[in-house]
Amino acid sequence: MNVLIVLAHPEPKSLNGSLKDLALETLTNMGHEVIVLDLYAMKFNAIMVPEDFKERADETKFNPIVEQYNAVKTGKTAEDVAAEMEKVNWSDLIIFQFPIWWTSFPAILKGWIDRVFANGFAFDAAEGKMYAEGLLKGKKAVLSFTTGAPWNLYTSEGPHGDIEVALTSITHNTMEAVGLEVLPLFGIFGPASMEEKELKKEMERYKAFLESF
Amino acid sequence: MNVLIVLAHPEPKSLNGSLKDLALETLTNMGHEVIVLDLYAMKFNAIMVPEDFKERADETKFNPIVEQYNAVKTGKTAEDVAAEMEKVNWSDLIIFQFPIWWTSFPAILKGWIDRVFANGFAFDAAEGKMYAEGLLKGKKAVLSFTTGAPWNLYTSEGPHGDIEVALTSITHNTMEAVGLEVLPLFGIFGPASMEEKELKKEMERYKAFLESF
Repeated sequence: MNVLIVLAHPEPKSLNGSLKDLALETLTNMGHEVIVLDLYAMKFNAIMVPEDFKERADETKFNPIVEQYNAVKTGKTAEDVAAEMEKVNWSDLIIFQFPIWWTSFPAILKGWIDRVFANGFAFDAAEGKMYAEGLLKGKKAVLSFTTGAPWNLYTSEGPHGDIEVALTSITHNTMEAVGLEVLPLFGIFGPASMEEKELKKEMERYKAFLESF
Repeated sequence: MNVLIVLAHPEPKSLNGSLKDLALETLTNMGHEVIVLDLYAMKFNAIMVPEDFKERADETKFNPIVEQYNAVKTGKTAEDVAAEMEKVNWSDLIIFQFPIWWTSFPAILKGWIDRVFANGFAFDAAEGKMYAEGLLKGKKAVLSFTTGAPWNLYTSEGPHGDIEVALTSITHNTMEAVGLEVLPLFGIFGPASMEEKELKKEMERYKAFLESF
């Protein structure tokens, strides 16, 4: 299986960095091919701008969804984005490894989605190809994340509410929208206040989760 | 009332740009003070990086929530972020004007939240000051957005599901988390396929919405 790990944490020595290392090692040992995209290390440009589109469908007014489609169909997608699309095409499974910031992706990862999951590449707005017909159909996605708050703040009775609900815009409206099958969430809740022993158990839990693929 | 409009669209001639203009004009005519933050025009740096923090609490390992708190408490917040914080402090109401991208904020606006709603400024993680005790308590927020898809795709029976659910991570886990009172959502669904007359009606609907403040 070809696995793409998309890491979005500014600190290589963070738990997110360690989880990426563990996934790389575990999956490679299992015989899978793994590519790591370290968005911070790459200084990935997360902001979609008109300058991405050198040959515009409409020079007078910038409409992202129109220009994305035109660029994909004419082979004029910005080089850095096209390189990411190639890796997505290559992959069978994409692991998103990130810290929960505001119960969502860090901006650098949101911007990766904004630019890479382009109209014409990941879905087709004109032909209504989304969800069951999403263009990334057949591939799978894993959300592997860490939170600042402990798990009991993320239950339906807790102040943040059920994390499955809060992540709907990612799991359903993003991943499933482009046809990806979303595997069960893997979260480590409140690692900052965990003891070494507890953290080690969480790492083992992640290893077992990866080995179940 | 002091109103901050945070605009996140790359095209000044977009409907989002027009909605910003309409809000500026309407609210000014009503006697309110208005400041517009045009994130694309400002080239706002949306990515939180270790370099934001010149005097670190921990030089060995970058932990964003720790460094944000330390920077706020020692007056060492990065200049561009501190300038935004001042405007937030000044405001009674913040209008977020944005196109829905992946049922969420465009990355540039997500990054504004990541950097500006800092620990110690908008909430206090150590003292558990969130929600009813969020540090921006007393202020209000409006989400004014446009969508690519028409409204019937955003109902509980539609493929995208209820937009109120999909936006939970913004309305509840972000805005309410820092103490902001969230006013009813204002969305214009599928303007790209609207006729001039219909669009004009939507603009009038927004004007009436603003005049109800």
